[in-house]
Amino acid sequence: MVTDRETGGRAARVLAAIHSSVGELVGEGAAKLTFPVIAERAGVNPTTLYRRWDGVNALLEEVAVAVLTRDGAVPPDCGSLEADLTEWAVLIARDITRPERTRYLRAMVSARTAATVRCPVMEARQEQASEMVDRARARGERTPTVRQVLDHVISPLYHHVAFALDVTDDHPRQLVRDVMSMAR
Amino acid sequence: MVTDRETGGRAARVLAAIHSSVGELVGEGAAKLTFPVIAERAGVNPTTLYRRWDGVNALLEEVAVAVLTRDGAVPPDCGSLEADLTEWAVLIARDITRPERTRYLRAMVSARTAATVRCPVMEARQEQASEMVDRARARGERTPTVRQVLDHVISPLYHHVAFALDVTDDHPRQLVRDVMSMAR
Repeated sequence: MVTDRETGGRAARVLAAIHSSVGELVGEGAAKLTFPVIAERAGVNPTTLYRRWDGVNALLEEVAVAVLTRDGAVPPDCGSLEADLTEWAVLIARDITRPERTRYLRAMVSARTAATVRCPVMEARQEQASEMVDRARARGERTPTVRQVLDHVISPLYHHVAFALDVTDDHPRQLVRDVMSMAR
Repeated sequence: MVTDRETGGRAARVLAAIHSSVGELVGEGAAKLTFPVIAERAGVNPTTLYRRWDGVNALLEEVAVAVLTRDGAVPPDCGSLEADLTEWAVLIARDITRPERTRYLRAMVSARTAATVRCPVMEARQEQASEMVDRARARGERTPTVRQVLDHVISPLYHHVAFALDVTDDHPRQLVRDVMSMAR
């Protein structure tokens, strides 16, 4: 007899195997990700994948989001918005410039189509930015808007990494100083 | 006898055929661009491609740069930096959100590797931004730096388009207002 707990454990192991296979294949710069290729690597039946995801892009997005929001998920709380944003931005910059993460980021871009309506990575960043901005306002600080934090700190970092432009450690710091000068 | 002029005309025609074949294939969302596939579409011998470009990515980059810098190449001259940047940013936003251009932009991202050392599209935007900022300074205006214009106007637009985030007509205008608030 298979208990619920065992089923859950098995399902979680299968999901983990699928996620890491996608990660390995992206990491190897696989030319074309397909369900059969991923299934073979994960040692699962391809029908498992066809049943669970609408297409390879949906699966890729899910894995990329999990990987790309792992770091910097709990926004720092240093007592001032400028310090919080700096720590957060430096962490994100270091994270997405790691070669494996950069490959995910580029894979996500190639998977985007006109039909894409959500960007869960940006939704996660937006929540984190809101938390830091709200806390600063509650302390009585003048702050830029959440939209400005995303446009002027997150976008330049992601743009630079996606297009293989330089990202030094000083870049996120500069971006935070810039956005803080918009504080009202 | 083949004159130089005829040779030049033929070379230009071959190059144009190769460029438009790449454009068509990117436009059709071709899964895998290879020299043989491009050569067949262009009606040229694959060796022509192997001889001229180091790899498909180099050719793709060349075509993408030509396409992505076609509009907004002559920076506007409206008498104030804010008006110049607004016109320029709106034009670029409209350009890169056209589905064909968006496909190029995403194709460029997938073609980027750790070995990429130049981004000719950004170099073109940097030249244009410098021209507008220099003109404004010569008029005695206070301006943001060229780096700030690229980070806070160009990067958010490219990031939004690459990742399929919304770009409304108001977005470039907002970004220009934001960057102008950094003027010193």
